[in-house]
Amino acid sequence: MKAGVIGATGYAGAELVRLLSGHSRVEDLILSSVSFEGGKIEEVYPNFIGRVSKPLVNAETVVNEADVVFAALPHGVGEQFAKTCVDKGKSFIDFSADFRFDDDETVYNAWYGKNYKYPELHKNSIYGLVELNRQKIKSLAAKGPVVIGNPGCYPTGGSLGAFPALAKGLNREETPVIIDAVTGTTGGGREPSRSFHYAECADSVSPYKVASHRHSPEIARNLAAMAGGNPAPRLIFTPRLAPVNRGILSVIYIPLKEKWNVTVGNANLPPSKEIEEKTDEIRRLYADFYRDEPFIRILPAGLTAATNRVRQSNFCDISVHLDINGSTLIITTAIDNMVKGSAGQAIQNMNLIFGFDEKTGLEAIPALF
Amino acid sequence: MKAGVIGATGYAGAELVRLLSGHSRVEDLILSSVSFEGGKIEEVYPNFIGRVSKPLVNAETVVNEADVVFAALPHGVGEQFAKTCVDKGKSFIDFSADFRFDDDETVYNAWYGKNYKYPELHKNSIYGLVELNRQKIKSLAAKGPVVIGNPGCYPTGGSLGAFPALAKGLNREETPVIIDAVTGTTGGGREPSRSFHYAECADSVSPYKVASHRHSPEIARNLAAMAGGNPAPRLIFTPRLAPVNRGILSVIYIPLKEKWNVTVGNANLPPSKEIEEKTDEIRRLYADFYRDEPFIRILPAGLTAATNRVRQSNFCDISVHLDINGSTLIITTAIDNMVKGSAGQAIQNMNLIFGFDEKTGLEAIPALF
Amino acid sequence: MKAGVIGATGYAGAELVRLLSGHSRVEDLILSSVSFEGGKIEEVYPNFIGRVSKPLVNAETVVNEADVVFAALPHGVGEQFAKTCVDKGKSFIDFSADFRFDDDETVYNAWYGKNYKYPELHKNSIYGLVELNRQKIKSLAAKGPVVIGNPGCYPTGGSLGAFPALAKGLNREETPVIIDAVTGTTGGGREPSRSFHYAECADSVSPYKVASHRHSPEIARNLAAMAGGNPAPRLIFTPRLAPVNRGILSVIYIPLKEKWNVTVGNANLPPSKEIEEKTDEIRRLYADFYRDEPFIRILPAGLTAATNRVRQSNFCDISVHLDINGSTLIITTAIDNMVKGSAGQAIQNMNLIFGFDEKTGLEAIPALF
Amino acid sequence: MKAGVIGATGYAGAELVRLLSGHSRVEDLILSSVSFEGGKIEEVYPNFIGRVSKPLVNAETVVNEADVVFAALPHGVGEQFAKTCVDKGKSFIDFSADFRFDDDETVYNAWYGKNYKYPELHKNSIYGLVELNRQKIKSLAAKGPVVIGNPGCYPTGGSLGAFPALAKGLNREETPVIIDAVTGTTGGGREPSRSFHYAECADSVSPYKVASHRHSPEIARNLAAMAGGNPAPRLIFTPRLAPVNRGILSVIYIPLKEKWNVTVGNANLPPSKEIEEKTDEIRRLYADFYRDEPFIRILPAGLTAATNRVRQSNFCDISVHLDINGSTLIITTAIDNMVKGSAGQAIQNMNLIFGFDEKTGLEAIPALF
Repeated sequence: MKAGVIGATGYAGAELVRLLSGHSRVEDLILSSVSFEGGKIEEVYPNFIGRVSKPLVNAETVVNEADVVFAALPHGVGEQFAKTCVDKGKSFIDFSADFRFDDDETVYNAWYGKNYKYPELHKNSIYGLVELNRQKIKSLAAKGPVVIGNPGCYPTGGSLGAFPALAKGLNREETPVIIDAVTGTTGGGREPSRSFHYAECADSVSPYKVASHRHSPEIARNLAAMAGGNPAPRLIFTPRLAPVNRGILSVIYIPLKEKWNVTVGNANLPPSKEIEEKTDEIRRLYADFYRDEPFIRILPAGLTAATNRVRQSNFCDISVHLDINGSTLIITTAIDNMVKGSAGQAIQNMNLIFGFDEKTGLEAIPALF
Repeated sequence: MKAGVIGATGYAGAELVRLLSGHSRVEDLILSSVSFEGGKIEEVYPNFIGRVSKPLVNAETVVNEADVVFAALPHGVGEQFAKTCVDKGKSFIDFSADFRFDDDETVYNAWYGKNYKYPELHKNSIYGLVELNRQKIKSLAAKGPVVIGNPGCYPTGGSLGAFPALAKGLNREETPVIIDAVTGTTGGGREPSRSFHYAECADSVSPYKVASHRHSPEIARNLAAMAGGNPAPRLIFTPRLAPVNRGILSVIYIPLKEKWNVTVGNANLPPSKEIEEKTDEIRRLYADFYRDEPFIRILPAGLTAATNRVRQSNFCDISVHLDINGSTLIITTAIDNMVKGSAGQAIQNMNLIFGFDEKTGLEAIPALF
Repeated sequence: MKAGVIGATGYAGAELVRLLSGHSRVEDLILSSVSFEGGKIEEVYPNFIGRVSKPLVNAETVVNEADVVFAALPHGVGEQFAKTCVDKGKSFIDFSADFRFDDDETVYNAWYGKNYKYPELHKNSIYGLVELNRQKIKSLAAKGPVVIGNPGCYPTGGSLGAFPALAKGLNREETPVIIDAVTGTTGGGREPSRSFHYAECADSVSPYKVASHRHSPEIARNLAAMAGGNPAPRLIFTPRLAPVNRGILSVIYIPLKEKWNVTVGNANLPPSKEIEEKTDEIRRLYADFYRDEPFIRILPAGLTAATNRVRQSNFCDISVHLDINGSTLIITTAIDNMVKGSAGQAIQNMNLIFGFDEKTGLEAIPALF
Repeated sequence: MKAGVIGATGYAGAELVRLLSGHSRVEDLILSSVSFEGGKIEEVYPNFIGRVSKPLVNAETVVNEADVVFAALPHGVGEQFAKTCVDKGKSFIDFSADFRFDDDETVYNAWYGKNYKYPELHKNSIYGLVELNRQKIKSLAAKGPVVIGNPGCYPTGGSLGAFPALAKGLNREETPVIIDAVTGTTGGGREPSRSFHYAECADSVSPYKVASHRHSPEIARNLAAMAGGNPAPRLIFTPRLAPVNRGILSVIYIPLKEKWNVTVGNANLPPSKEIEEKTDEIRRLYADFYRDEPFIRILPAGLTAATNRVRQSNFCDISVHLDINGSTLIITTAIDNMVKGSAGQAIQNMNLIFGFDEKTGLEAIPALF
């Protein structure tokens, strides 16, 4: 099988190249780059020397020669390639937000300021959060080429942590779910800017786009989808930047129905045994919900999620906690934003589409350091 | 004036020595250290060479010779020194948790596992969050020597961000206040341990002691104190560790009374103009509340708090945000955990006790990098 | 094949476990740990959860059950295991310095303060720098079990950069070779200490053990071995610590014979075309020398070695430079201290001993970030 | 006194503003910025809020209103301002390379590609490495306005470490002096670029411009000047980038005259007592040479220079070492590149020109973290 990557020289594209190069079912890579067309991938990323050597061609060549096309392009420019791919009978996996909102052009337009050129395409596209849409993706792929909107990094780590609670209707609807996520700098991409200039972000932590980040509507849609018949919870999302290369550490606050509450005589005492037991109960519920998922690890009591434990893997680690009187479920999740939050998840989608074992090419063991 | 520091060779002690050395009213320093008694401070911290040269004596000598005594000791060991100081008519500023709970031995014991030896001492001690207790500290100091419980680092950054909203009764009582704070590693002190071993915490983010950190009861008490006649809000507190040396970045979620709510037809759209106006209104309210505070900076619209902008200063930066439908006030605060969160705040207390200008010795300009 | 690791829970041991788990010829792992015997490897390193699950047994069990034994132990304690292994007909690959000096007990004793218990063992052991001793290792392994002294991290990066120049006799003997190497913190191991406490080494660079590090004699021996008939050059070695997890960046200054000198009228001008040509000549010589080596990459003109381009790989990157008047060859090398400088190199030795393709299990593509 | 800063919004300019704001003899600051003219300094650097509030005017206003003018501008654009200042009788302290080469236009042109417009100006300018030129600066300043070429960061740390050995003629002339310096990222300035993009330089070390950096000729000139009647040593200079904000850690290899040599029977043994004694001798010689320098600290035996011990100070720390057979003196120096390597040194020059105590405004105690 030949895999094609349009936009192979951005960070997400390069990470995809790195992962696809170790994928046992991928025989060849066709790579394109607008900025470096005519060069070679290992000239742009010398870490590839001796391991990956590929010419950088133009996007048309990728679309023509590859059996599946990944596009790691800015928002709003990949639609044409998607159209051509589908017309040629090839599946298209898109890293931008263009296909993350199905046919909800209003929301897409409000946050990204673009319109759909091919509305029909969006009706038949599918959001590629496998843990949410596995069956739909499989079914669609069985019928012909599919267009996948590969999820955003924050929506992946945030949604996976909230899903079991919402699916089981544990949450109290009146109060918003809060997701507060700390990210590494690679999420900002390869283009130099003040925000990601070493001296400006090293040794510092800072939030940005508080309650106004455009991953909010994507997460909100995921939560609504998982809530199913239940009312969709409102969402508050805060991203922060920390001086790490990879990783997103999300803490998710889910207000619980009253049945989970524990009466505490004095709110200032340490967690009671009853709280520990309820926490265990919800942890088991989480473990059960995800029991067949190859990339979700529910951590045992005593551990919290940490980004260095999922580094360079497709894992999403989840730990389960409860506040002192059982009013709020506190979930922590860790993903590698470049793998499960981007390139790895895209490969997971490809595996699903082609009927490969979902873990193929994604079995790296996280490197602690 | 002679200032004494018991426990001068831990990180908090050493930072205090650095700051006191530049304090125009402090003529001499008397320093003690159990581990390094007989040596000199600049042998333990060679960065002091040529700037600070002081022998390390024992604690008794500090108590005898100094006019004011700071104790940067582990929890539960400073009480005896406090007693002796007060008996000798000297004020005592304690960095441990021993004097942060007034005479509430139950809470102190539940979280720190220790008991009070001199209950009387605690009745007359005072919690040194100046922005909360300035008048009380002044009044007490006017009457004689005082014992100050210098606030914890998390409680400082968290409480200051919540105070105006609580004091003005903006918050909806039924829903808990959530404080989610990312800290640097110096908060863990100088003693080597796995958690702060470079390779284990570099390039990674991780929460710990979720909803079970012993700074929780201290913050809860502060919020209750500021709420005054209003019911005290419940509190959820999550700390995370990030790979930075200094700083705490807190995000504080305060549920608002219904009057602040904005009807949104579709929760997935970007913030409306109405939300911006309400945010401005609350920002003005915050600015007004803190208008006379020398160390609080309410940031203008468009900026969020960042730890590198308060580095090595006694500032607490605060930014004000509102979620999309006005249900939740989102406050971000940044402090330097070693200054406003520790040694700087202790000096602020000393200045208050001695009637110095509160800013004396605390006028450093934050170094961006 | 079953591979055994004695001391599996230190950093080198854990990295070895990570790499061996992806080795196609290794069917099972037998792991021991003194500190965690009775537990499981994934309890000590939760990053392994779902990927590697192995009980931690005692060293004897490893020696009994494994077909090859790696020992990642402190210096001076592995000899007995080596003896037992050899007696049982099993090869033993040692990470400590115990078998790096052949039978030169004087040097070993002077730097490590220990003596040999089984001198015979050392006569038949071999230093496992494959690029130096490949044929010897192969020949010895053909005859029976071998004991390998796996090279130190600094000696690997430093020696590989100097070898071609010494082998070809480019160097001027009277003047010492200088190796100045900047290392990451994982070289210091897993045990917490002040030197590797986050706040003490983050955001700082510092040399240590200047001209007195015990990797000096190991490097000096390598240089002498490669110089062959030529006089061995004297060596000056300076290590520095920088705030990175992995990697060693060595700069190697090799004084050149007069024939390489270029007359410069004014020593203060930029490099001339003649210097560039001579640099190209030596670069070709380096490329030729290492043309069959699977893990050495001679970088093209315009690139210098960087540790992030070899991250998590077994590569040693080398760049070639010349000073302004051709008096000194300046080589930069980058390795991952935990892979080529430790666990990867050990596997390279195992591959050689067992007749596997030398690259097996070592084909990871370096991750730029 | 009014101090003016042309180019106040680059990193060097902003650091100068921070330091000048705490200078007891500076009553007012006049700041200019091409990019932000019309704004305020605290809008560009919000860390200044509440501490420094100044409008950003144009350069002409600075020249007209200030009593002394600092220029933190790119190379080749400050000459005109220097001319105007001198004509107006004001001293001019330049951060660029324009006035670092006296009237040696050939070297300046070869490395910076620019020519002198006012050759006369350069004849009367002076290189502002105070430890080299204190008397000249004083004498010139006594006669009228002076133009100072403020030294580069690398030349400062490198030259100061070599000076005593050269002044005392310890060095063996035939062999080059090697300076290998690891720098932090702020030396690259505020403008975003790939080299200083967080994800490209974090967790990595890399050399650049090996033996071809344009600070080489500046260092070479300093060494020649200090060598005095002795032949100037040749110089090899290698810079490396490490992931730290501030600081330069230089290791300087100075070949010694034969009289310092120690015969070693076996070059592979640890340093002898004789070597330690010779090291002590040279350390005393260094201490004596710098005995009146307020910013040089010769570290005691057992310490090596470290950048975190000089952070934010004007200190240059120096440690003295000797290789195993006394052939090479190994000096390590640490400076803060933004203070002693830039803004602090400029203020030191200003103090000298105006007859202030040289330490005024430069008494900050280094913050270990």
